[in-house]
Amino acid sequence: MSHDRENCSALVDGVVRGDKRALARAISLVESYRPESETLLKVIFAKTGRAYRVGITGPPGAGKSTLASRIARHYGNRGLKVGIIAVDPTSPFTGGALLGDRVRMSDVELDGSVFIRSMASRGSLGGLSVATQDAADVLDAAGFDLILLETVGVGQSELDVVRAADTVIVVLVPESGDSIQAMKAGLMEIADLFVMNKSDRPGADQAATALRTILSLRPNPHSWTPEVLKTTASESQGIDRVCTFIEKHREFQSSNGLLEQRRAARLQEKVKELVIRSLHTEFWNNERRELLEARLPSLCERSTSPYEVVEELLRTFPL
Amino acid sequence: MSHDRENCSALVDGVVRGDKRALARAISLVESYRPESETLLKVIFAKTGRAYRVGITGPPGAGKSTLASRIARHYGNRGLKVGIIAVDPTSPFTGGALLGDRVRMSDVELDGSVFIRSMASRGSLGGLSVATQDAADVLDAAGFDLILLETVGVGQSELDVVRAADTVIVVLVPESGDSIQAMKAGLMEIADLFVMNKSDRPGADQAATALRTILSLRPNPHSWTPEVLKTTASESQGIDRVCTFIEKHREFQSSNGLLEQRRAARLQEKVKELVIRSLHTEFWNNERRELLEARLPSLCERSTSPYEVVEELLRTFPL
Repeated sequence: MSHDRENCSALVDGVVRGDKRALARAISLVESYRPESETLLKVIFAKTGRAYRVGITGPPGAGKSTLASRIARHYGNRGLKVGIIAVDPTSPFTGGALLGDRVRMSDVELDGSVFIRSMASRGSLGGLSVATQDAADVLDAAGFDLILLETVGVGQSELDVVRAADTVIVVLVPESGDSIQAMKAGLMEIADLFVMNKSDRPGADQAATALRTILSLRPNPHSWTPEVLKTTASESQGIDRVCTFIEKHREFQSSNGLLEQRRAARLQEKVKELVIRSLHTEFWNNERRELLEARLPSLCERSTSPYEVVEELLRTFPL
Repeated sequence: MSHDRENCSALVDGVVRGDKRALARAISLVESYRPESETLLKVIFAKTGRAYRVGITGPPGAGKSTLASRIARHYGNRGLKVGIIAVDPTSPFTGGALLGDRVRMSDVELDGSVFIRSMASRGSLGGLSVATQDAADVLDAAGFDLILLETVGVGQSELDVVRAADTVIVVLVPESGDSIQAMKAGLMEIADLFVMNKSDRPGADQAATALRTILSLRPNPHSWTPEVLKTTASESQGIDRVCTFIEKHREFQSSNGLLEQRRAARLQEKVKELVIRSLHTEFWNNERRELLEARLPSLCERSTSPYEVVEELLRTFPL
């Protein structure tokens, strides 16, 4: 225990110094959900809150990773410390192995100036969103100025990841119907900025115009209308404007208190996700696991419903 | 209360008769998580277990909905009762409205012989998987023979939906890299059958061959090697073979006890998801919500970490 604490304090020192090996180890630790990770996260929490977090999402193939790396390079060139956390299973950062055995690319660096980390989109119970926020906290405590969270914009758990950012960019491509699909997938509600990427393809102007029309018709509770910017990230076209926009959105939110509100909501949400995880772990002790096992035959025979088994289990659980 | 029970018993009667309006109302009820839905689900549970459930998943644009409707028509023509439950935000069944306000298509019927229901991919805490299984239970109790669960194959919550089926079909298209992305997204592990759809496009044979090679190299714990079938669902090409395969897989699993095992695991998983939902709801009473509210300022100032707030909250909670 005290040995653990010593290790942890060495790790914290490494993280705060920005040592890349320590960062990689710390993120692996928070990803593992092991108890030591809590000690680490409690200690570093006081040093977080300075980094600005940008979520980048959109359908597979929209060019999210390319955009992320271009934004990272833009700010890296200006001397900022930038980190990318990728949880997109289709991202080149995230890797993936043949033979069904998932192996993640080890931490790679882009031009040596950007820290890139991929995370597995596994687990449930809000685990993905907690793990990515914890990883972002590690980078935040290490003095990173900008953290980009990249995830594919399909799926509830994945959207929760970017929803926890300070600015959310939704990346689309000009192909017809893409923006309509984005609306269906719940991307419209979370976007602070739309990037119409691959704008060298035909139909980019029409797609951007259609999207602007839709946005102008939408109720706008925060008096912030998301812009639609065209980029060709692979050619580094339009990246400057995207970055200018991120700064504009940051200022807007800082000046009217929205950034604080957003971060408070994120912390509240995180507490709730951690509570769920703890309750789940503590609830399923041996006794309750055995009770469920004992009821399995009657569940399979359909003589007892799952809802009745749940009631029986919860009776052993005073709230 | 007794009024509710009467209503519920009328609804159960309607469901068991297979009345379409009752089915639609019952599914809306289970989707809402209202307490009355539990009463309904407990009563109908005894009548479930007869329907065969097929999960259909894959990347957006792979043609999952078209394949589902063709499979449904195949069995509908043979006199079976078939239902489709679509939770894919990119599915034409699922609909979606302009102006950010999500409206789902009301229940539509294909050729009048197939019941189609779309469900919103909202909520978390395993809610999506519970809701779709509950909806499938409603159709099961109504005497449906085959239930197709369609969901986009990206995202943890969405994969949990199809993982709860008896046979899982992963739909891909010949475009290069698609099968590699499928592996990264965790689709390889859950597939009982691969369908290479849109096989009239160039590269279909090579893509199918590449996929077969990968599969042959994979460890195979269940002595079941997923086949790779080519289809052009929009032209109804290859549908018969897909259906023959579904039946073959069903027989394989029935004969060696795997189907029972799979369904038992599904019921166990469902109990766990319901427990989480209940714990979450009961935990967040007024007292604990106020405690979290009171800790918010120190969270925002970074003087208390979320992990410490969670510990304080859990101390009020004897396990």
